[in-house]
Amino acid sequence: MQGMLIRHAEPSDYQPIIAVVNEWWGGRQMADMLPMLFFMHFRPTSFVVENKGKIVGFVIGFVSHTFPEEAYIHFVGVHPEFRKDGVAGALYEKFFAAVAKLGCSIVRCVTAPINKGSIAFHHRMGFTAKDSEKIVDGVPVVEGYDGKGEDRVLFSKILDVERN
Amino acid sequence: MQGMLIRHAEPSDYQPIIAVVNEWWGGRQMADMLPMLFFMHFRPTSFVVENKGKIVGFVIGFVSHTFPEEAYIHFVGVHPEFRKDGVAGALYEKFFAAVAKLGCSIVRCVTAPINKGSIAFHHRMGFTAKDSEKIVDGVPVVEGYDGKGEDRVLFSKILDVERN
Repeated sequence: MQGMLIRHAEPSDYQPIIAVVNEWWGGRQMADMLPMLFFMHFRPTSFVVENKGKIVGFVIGFVSHTFPEEAYIHFVGVHPEFRKDGVAGALYEKFFAAVAKLGCSIVRCVTAPINKGSIAFHHRMGFTAKDSEKIVDGVPVVEGYDGKGEDRVLFSKILDVERN
Repeated sequence: MQGMLIRHAEPSDYQPIIAVVNEWWGGRQMADMLPMLFFMHFRPTSFVVENKGKIVGFVIGFVSHTFPEEAYIHFVGVHPEFRKDGVAGALYEKFFAAVAKLGCSIVRCVTAPINKGSIAFHHRMGFTAKDSEKIVDGVPVVEGYDGKGEDRVLFSKILDVERN
């Protein structure tokens, strides 16, 4: 993260990010999961990392309206060339601090079982996967959580609110 | 709407809805736009209509965190056999009342230019399309609003807050 800047995600960040997001995922079609609304309406809890004026990572999340003490991370993305630099971790820490200030004590997110890198990252960041009867490669998976064929690992993490 | 019940959308409504949503759209792939998170975290401003215990329509929306006086409607769906019964209009009115109580004075949403039924509906509901240089069938369209190839009509409506 040396020399990098972390700041709130702005609506104007959407077009440069959506243009490269499938590429960052090695060709997986991710853009459909990321309509403009997330950049427009969740600025207070969404962040980007810039390196020399270019965005190399972002996190989109929000405070739940149903459960005001819960925050949810919808999307995190890092430029493939910056994946060992702690960018995703720094974005998550920024998000944790922002939602703790807004009264949240728990952070949730979901990931696809195929995304081994994401699963390992969430374990490193202190997330726990919700139990399920279905286990894939040692990880509990909720079948069809996001609709038919869309299995997900459900992660949560209790925030250590005192540190903030 | 005679004999029908309108109530908040619950997380438990997600699976029955996601199983039929592509079908309700005549086979268009809509399910990717509707992950579980919308039913989980935006209950206070999301509603379903039931007819004889079966869901025949729903609206998913939220109050913007970036612009607290703005509300956003992400998704509205009505069972094809119930499209002339005022279900979508009733869902929108319920949403308007809910977000007005939460301090909103404007409601926004976007739709695809191909969705003529949606465009006509929003005009009937008092929405105005944002100006754009590109006009398709008389309607202003913002090119690539939701990413490359994803043109959208941008609708907004000022709420008549006094009535609430």
